[in-house]
Amino acid sequence: MTQEKHIASAFDRDLETVQALVIKMGGLVEAAINEAATALESRDEELAEQVRRRDRAIDELEMQINEEAARLIALRAPNSTDLRVVLTVMKIAASLERVGDYAKNMAKRSHVLAHLPVINGSGLALRRMAATVERMMKDALDSYIQRDANLAADVRQRDLEVDQMYNALFREFLTYMMEDPRNITACMHLHFIAKNIERMGDHATSIAEQVIYLVTGELPEDARPKSDSVSRAELNEGED
Amino acid sequence: MTQEKHIASAFDRDLETVQALVIKMGGLVEAAINEAATALESRDEELAEQVRRRDRAIDELEMQINEEAARLIALRAPNSTDLRVVLTVMKIAASLERVGDYAKNMAKRSHVLAHLPVINGSGLALRRMAATVERMMKDALDSYIQRDANLAADVRQRDLEVDQMYNALFREFLTYMMEDPRNITACMHLHFIAKNIERMGDHATSIAEQVIYLVTGELPEDARPKSDSVSRAELNEGED
Repeated sequence: MTQEKHIASAFDRDLETVQALVIKMGGLVEAAINEAATALESRDEELAEQVRRRDRAIDELEMQINEEAARLIALRAPNSTDLRVVLTVMKIAASLERVGDYAKNMAKRSHVLAHLPVINGSGLALRRMAATVERMMKDALDSYIQRDANLAADVRQRDLEVDQMYNALFREFLTYMMEDPRNITACMHLHFIAKNIERMGDHATSIAEQVIYLVTGELPEDARPKSDSVSRAELNEGED
Repeated sequence: MTQEKHIASAFDRDLETVQALVIKMGGLVEAAINEAATALESRDEELAEQVRRRDRAIDELEMQINEEAARLIALRAPNSTDLRVVLTVMKIAASLERVGDYAKNMAKRSHVLAHLPVINGSGLALRRMAATVERMMKDALDSYIQRDANLAADVRQRDLEVDQMYNALFREFLTYMMEDPRNITACMHLHFIAKNIERMGDHATSIAEQVIYLVTGELPEDARPKSDSVSRAELNEGED
């Protein structure tokens, strides 16, 4: 009993160490989203370069989290419930790593876009979209730490807003391309950025779903599409 | 000694069970790539629908692999070398799951494209690109099973071909969009498909890099860009 108690608390202590790394990783990823969007809007190539350089730290944190998590499993031989928690941590780290890549990708494209015609209002619209996703990401991580299924459910809801923002931008870029072919290259890059921000939102959503699964034991009925699915919005566009 | 030997062989036996699941998952993913590309080219909506439905089996295999891998770690408390192998298996499963999503996404877009103007030659070009990536994926998995760093290095090289195919298609879609605005929506979907096939190649490459890391203990110097990076080709396009 005391033995079990000892093992249990040792597991919790180790888990907290791993979770601290996830929080740190989350902070870096939120900053990357914010800075990538700012760099794009202000055509700040230096800030964009910084975002690209810093992605390495995010990747290294993911590796560290995976190794710590694996060591924890090997050392504490957790029961199936605790095992699920550790697997969730690894899933969350994987999602954060992907989102960091999207931010880096955004930064790379902003170097290209700095030399292409300005598409009015696109920088501001994309920064707004990124800010929404950044908050979703923060709340998704908080919902994990606090095991708060309601907050997680709220994050899932907000992903619909992001899809709407994406839909509006998709329409806007189409009109810019149709009215002047010289806008096409810029709009294709901007469209990719909008799509990548939408995918960041999908990752925040999938973290939220992991939390709901962790707390309630089941995934939400209408589980949201995966990070790379075509948004309903875009399909409608396609069908126009 | 015999004890250690016993544990070691038990680990290997369990690992083989997990690896069998990875092989199975790889087979499903290769089929999904192939069928999604065929459905797109032949505008076969039924086949596309099948690809979408079957993605669930791929997702379930990933979950199963993660749980088996975690149970293996918990049960066998592997040393750091064996632990790295198990983490690699989980990474490979994650990559396969992503590629399955891209194939599903391709299938979804082919439903949309079936109702849009045909862009000459795009279906064939995309199927060729997909076939190249399918072979890369198969060889990347073989290189893992055989711990063949040379085959893995070869897979990485072939990713450059895929980037070139993507670059050529990017140019082609731009010209179609510029010459007739009615082609823009179709070309944007086709461009996304081309980009997603290129990303599949990046995932095959990252599996190959995991293998090289596993066999040689270090990642290749010029580690290829992450699955979401902007290809050099596309950046050049952007700078035109």
